Amino acid sequence: MNIILLSGGSGKRLWPLSNDIRSKQFIKIFKTEDGSYGSMVQRVYHQIRKVDPGADVTIATSKAQVSSIHNQLGEQVGISVEPCRRDTFPAIALATAYLHYVRGISADEAVVVCPVDPYVDDSYFAAIKKLGQLAEEEQANLVLMGIEPTYPSEKYGYIIPESQSQVSFVSTFKEKPDLETAKIYLRQGALWNGGVFAYKLGYVLDKARALIGFTDYQDLFTRYDTLTKISFDYAVAEKEPRIQVMRYKGQWKDLGTWNTLTEAMGESIVGEAMMDDSCKNVHIVNELGVPVLAMGLTDVVISASPEGILVSDKEQSSYIKPLVDQIDQQIMFAEKSWGSFRVLDVEAESLTIKVTLNKGHSMNYHSHRCRDEVWTVISGHGQTVVDDVRQEVGPGDVIVMKAGCRHTVIAGTELKLIEVQLGREISVHDKQKSELL
Amino acid sequence: MNIILLSGGSGKRLWPLSNDIRSKQFIKIFKTEDGSYGSMVQRVYHQIRKVDPGADVTIATSKAQVSSIHNQLGEQVGISVEPCRRDTFPAIALATAYLHYVRGISADEAVVVCPVDPYVDDSYFAAIKKLGQLAEEEQANLVLMGIEPTYPSEKYGYIIPESQSQVSFVSTFKEKPDLETAKIYLRQGALWNGGVFAYKLGYVLDKARALIGFTDYQDLFTRYDTLTKISFDYAVAEKEPRIQVMRYKGQWKDLGTWNTLTEAMGESIVGEAMMDDSCKNVHIVNELGVPVLAMGLTDVVISASPEGILVSDKEQSSYIKPLVDQIDQQIMFAEKSWGSFRVLDVEAESLTIKVTLNKGHSMNYHSHRCRDEVWTVISGHGQTVVDDVRQEVGPGDVIVMKAGCRHTVIAGTELKLIEVQLGREISVHDKQKSELL
Repeated sequence: MNIILLSGGSGKRLWPLSNDIRSKQFIKIFKTEDGSYGSMVQRVYHQIRKVDPGADVTIATSKAQVSSIHNQLGEQVGISVEPCRRDTFPAIALATAYLHYVRGISADEAVVVCPVDPYVDDSYFAAIKKLGQLAEEEQANLVLMGIEPTYPSEKYGYIIPESQSQVSFVSTFKEKPDLETAKIYLRQGALWNGGVFAYKLGYVLDKARALIGFTDYQDLFTRYDTLTKISFDYAVAEKEPRIQVMRYKGQWKDLGTWNTLTEAMGESIVGEAMMDDSCKNVHIVNELGVPVLAMGLTDVVISASPEGILVSDKEQSSYIKPLVDQIDQQIMFAEKSWGSFRVLDVEAESLTIKVTLNKGHSMNYHSHRCRDEVWTVISGHGQTVVDDVRQEVGPGDVIVMKAGCRHTVIAGTELKLIEVQLGREISVHDKQKSELL
Repeated sequence: MNIILLSGGSGKRLWPLSNDIRSKQFIKIFKTEDGSYGSMVQRVYHQIRKVDPGADVTIATSKAQVSSIHNQLGEQVGISVEPCRRDTFPAIALATAYLHYVRGISADEAVVVCPVDPYVDDSYFAAIKKLGQLAEEEQANLVLMGIEPTYPSEKYGYIIPESQSQVSFVSTFKEKPDLETAKIYLRQGALWNGGVFAYKLGYVLDKARALIGFTDYQDLFTRYDTLTKISFDYAVAEKEPRIQVMRYKGQWKDLGTWNTLTEAMGESIVGEAMMDDSCKNVHIVNELGVPVLAMGLTDVVISASPEGILVSDKEQSSYIKPLVDQIDQQIMFAEKSWGSFRVLDVEAESLTIKVTLNKGHSMNYHSHRCRDEVWTVISGHGQTVVDDVRQEVGPGDVIVMKAGCRHTVIAGTELKLIEVQLGREISVHDKQKSELL
């Protein structure tokens, strides 16, 4: 089975765990079998591997997420990198071209496209496999998954099938309705459109050539920023007469708000926290190294991260976005392909961060115009390179780098260091990459 | 007027702002006239100075609080340091001996003893001055302040006066009653015992000599740890026949819990925080450098400090103590006589802290057996001394100190540095003081 997972953009609705550079799909919040915590993307990836160990998974995403994906899923996973955001049709066309032209998958093979962040059980991926098989049988050009509604939701688009059979042709699509209209749809046997569908590669390549015009993957990639933003539903699905829908009635949750996310959590506390007996329906997610204590609360979510602290009534949490938009907080924590960093202290003319490099990884060889830096290695071993001079380093070693000096560290084991940045104009944009000799 | 302010021990009822080393009276939570925030002890001290600019204020406290008191009130304030905690009678005897033998105040002068942490208006200190005058008139050996009760509280002891006049002899003392008994006391015209009283120095010196036996302040100080723990009420007040009470009916609040403390806060937010329109009766005190966002809450207090985060229903917050007792959190922030430090990062074999030295101050000249340290100065100027070698330092300077090496820094201006401690057994107890040549 070929799968394209659409890994959406950053969002603030799960602030302080998600923000401009940290998407909700990377939050480690689900307890795994070995007792550690996994993210949505890790959960979905492992579920796919479990249902189909030979599945070919490609993640369609932006450049900003590549580090986090490699960090969470390893270097082997396929990634179709969108040079910029251009809505779902260009993204799916690019990923499809990647599968065909880069990965050499035949235009006759089917692929299933699905979002990276549904909260589902394994039966969902068995259904997805079936969806791919239906696409290869070619009774239709496009086969959608239709989720059996559990209530008249106003949050989803609807698919009206021609019949009530397991697989049926699609009668029509409906936009997100109001409550009364949603009730009417349910009486008509409508299904939720969860954005999951299968097609043969050739079908989308043909559509893309007709709408965009390109020769191969590289050509499409190069011209990507000139493409018009358009959704796959609008560009393709709603115009396709030969389109089927397959019903799915297993577990399916869209974990877009704190309210729905906490419903999916196996335990009420993740991280260091305590609540008294008078707390009812309280969830705490604490990424900080100090304890959270909750007392006498009902229907409340508490979430603390290096970016900030949310305390919200669960229902009220769905109105978070405009409030978080008002917060102008610098990035305090980020995952990188080589590890992660966390801001420890901010002063007018200094910034102190903790850098963790994964074993065998290194940051880019780079320099800064406007700041000096001091590294103190606190654990692990590796090699620093400063203006082309290599040096073995371990705990307690101090490296002083003046502005303009090129530097990197290569981690032999996992390596942690405290970096003190000093200067009047400290900015993430002050970074010049160099070639490491 | 002479005043002894009793500065009580550490307490956890206002966690995470108070803890084993940070007492509630030092929390900066009250907006002052210049827009900055002051603590309970600062508020009370300035109120006394306002009512009586010439007042002689002595704070009776433990060694652990001396740094915070100097830091918040300056070096001029008188402090009677208890070598260990021995309840109120020994503490008051020691402070009284300090006033007489060290400060040379006549045994014929009166002194007023009061707790350091009541939330009161200025009329309270006018009443205290009057209390001292009554003591000097010598109609009684001891003159108490009796607070007019506003409700039948179970939290306070009661004083039953002989009459309803402004100043009256005391009929009897009553322990903290249950609700029904409290109602009966109120009908009898009883007053709350707020622990405020005045006497002539000679009176308590005589009592202390009779009960303890000592020659002078130094003798009492030296033998302090051998004294029996006993309260002033039990040892003196309840046995004294010549005792008066003066009524006080101005503002008086005991800020012992988050519920009462938030009632006294002028504003609902201290620190970086935001709440939506649906929040009702919510207070936020945030000492962290990242924002708190509150949504849809009612009657809740949120408090965040380097030690942890509390989210509590206000009424429920009075039951905090046993919960906080379960938390085994290392000290993350402390005020010292020379400035303050804050823990930034904790690892198995390293600890990173930020040290702020006040202008003109320095830490003790000291060494560590089991850890190396690295300082990176991030702001200010001063002088380091490392194994007797002096060096001028400023931003960007790095000092590496191996275990065993003696070191200090003397701040010429306010000076901040990042200290990385490295070793297998990092402990606050691993500190050997040396003499600075």
